[in-house]
Amino acid sequence: RSGKMAKSTQLINNEVFQAYATYTAIVLLKMMLMSLVTAYLRMTRKAFMNPEDTASFGKGESAKKYLRTDPDVERARRGHLNDLENIVPFAGIGLLYALSGPELSTALMHFRIFAGARILHTFAYLIPLPQPSRGLSWAVGYAVTFSMAYKVLKT
Amino acid sequence: RSGKMAKSTQLINNEVFQAYATYTAIVLLKMMLMSLVTAYLRMTRKAFMNPEDTASFGKGESAKKYLRTDPDVERARRGHLNDLENIVPFAGIGLLYALSGPELSTALMHFRIFAGARILHTFAYLIPLPQPSRGLSWAVGYAVTFSMAYKVLKT
Amino acid sequence: RSGKMAKSTQLINNEVFQAYATYTAIVLLKMMLMSLVTAYLRMTRKAFMNPEDTASFGKGESAKKYLRTDPDVERARRGHLNDLENIVPFAGIGLLYALSGPELSTALMHFRIFAGARILHTFAYLIPLPQPSRGLSWAVGYAVTFSMAYKVLKT
Repeated sequence: RSGKMAKSTQLINNEVFQAYATYTAIVLLKMMLMSLVTAYLRMTRKAFMNPEDTASFGKGESAKKYLRTDPDVERARRGHLNDLENIVPFAGIGLLYALSGPELSTALMHFRIFAGARILHTFAYLIPLPQPSRGLSWAVGYAVTFSMAYKVLKT
Repeated sequence: RSGKMAKSTQLINNEVFQAYATYTAIVLLKMMLMSLVTAYLRMTRKAFMNPEDTASFGKGESAKKYLRTDPDVERARRGHLNDLENIVPFAGIGLLYALSGPELSTALMHFRIFAGARILHTFAYLIPLPQPSRGLSWAVGYAVTFSMAYKVLKT
Repeated sequence: RSGKMAKSTQLINNEVFQAYATYTAIVLLKMMLMSLVTAYLRMTRKAFMNPEDTASFGKGESAKKYLRTDPDVERARRGHLNDLENIVPFAGIGLLYALSGPELSTALMHFRIFAGARILHTFAYLIPLPQPSRGLSWAVGYAVTFSMAYKVLKT
């Protein structure tokens, strides 16, 4: 095992690390897109949180009515927070996993299933799809991260 | 110093990095468990945020009454967010710290105190224990992360 | 290209990685300071979320009145969450970017603009400054992270 592990210190030429980099960049970008979804919904629904954001709608009461919550905006924000709660552990544990010398094919399977599950989760949350689509896609991503953590702690 | 630092580039065989990997995996898993606590409380308290989550309770008004907040669910969610706010900086700064060539014993002390403090913090938040238990356990983890950041920026 | 990339595996002696470590530590510390801002505002505004936090103000109704939300506290909490949503992708994608062999001057430009934009964003949020200061500082940091992700996925 130590032979394989020593090899994996050459981070950049390591195929597993390359795969980690690609899929982590993808899911982090996907998470960032939630900011744009929220911003888009806030502007189309005219639902803001900060008084300074409604200043362009005029002064006083006419602007104050846009300081309100909107169900679709709140839904996008919950999806964003759920991404933080799940993609952050994936990125952290995935880095340690990629450095623990896994087989490339096993690692790719973990990364791809996670990325696919989180993309499905976003569609299930935003459309929204009937349950258990959101619950299942969440659970699949969660299980992948646990499986990687098990490998890290065993090593 | 540069001799010690060069050695630490052999990430995987480095004992400090191994310790970092172990304790970071532990606190990230602990953070992930907050999702299960929240999900368990939502189901036992019947308190949901999304209409599609209450569809199995029937249609119309009979399901709508479960779209509500519950103090215990909100408490678990605040604990989860507090984990994100504190464990994310630990994981990021801890990685840089582990690569900055600290003594193994010093590094282990940082990692262990942080992990212990965050586990205490979770019990203090969920039970809940009277203050200042939650405040103190939060402050200890915070101070450990600052101490590691000081070492990183000095190096 | 592969020559430059091989060199960058010597993490610690790598100037780009050193720059990444410095600026990531700075923005993570800045994010952590939001906890202190929130705690300070909760105590001066006497606005708490957990009953155990108000126990020192006496029992029953006299303490219960401090279980309330305050606009300034909520503003600091939104700023903190916005940091999480933006600084986490920067730290993750920035690490992969630093390992992808960028020019030092280009990398420094990315890291410095991001750090500056996020510090401005915090002032714009907390003071608050009139829009579009907060929106623009957010967008600049967002664009920097996208630019780094583009380099990572191209490599």
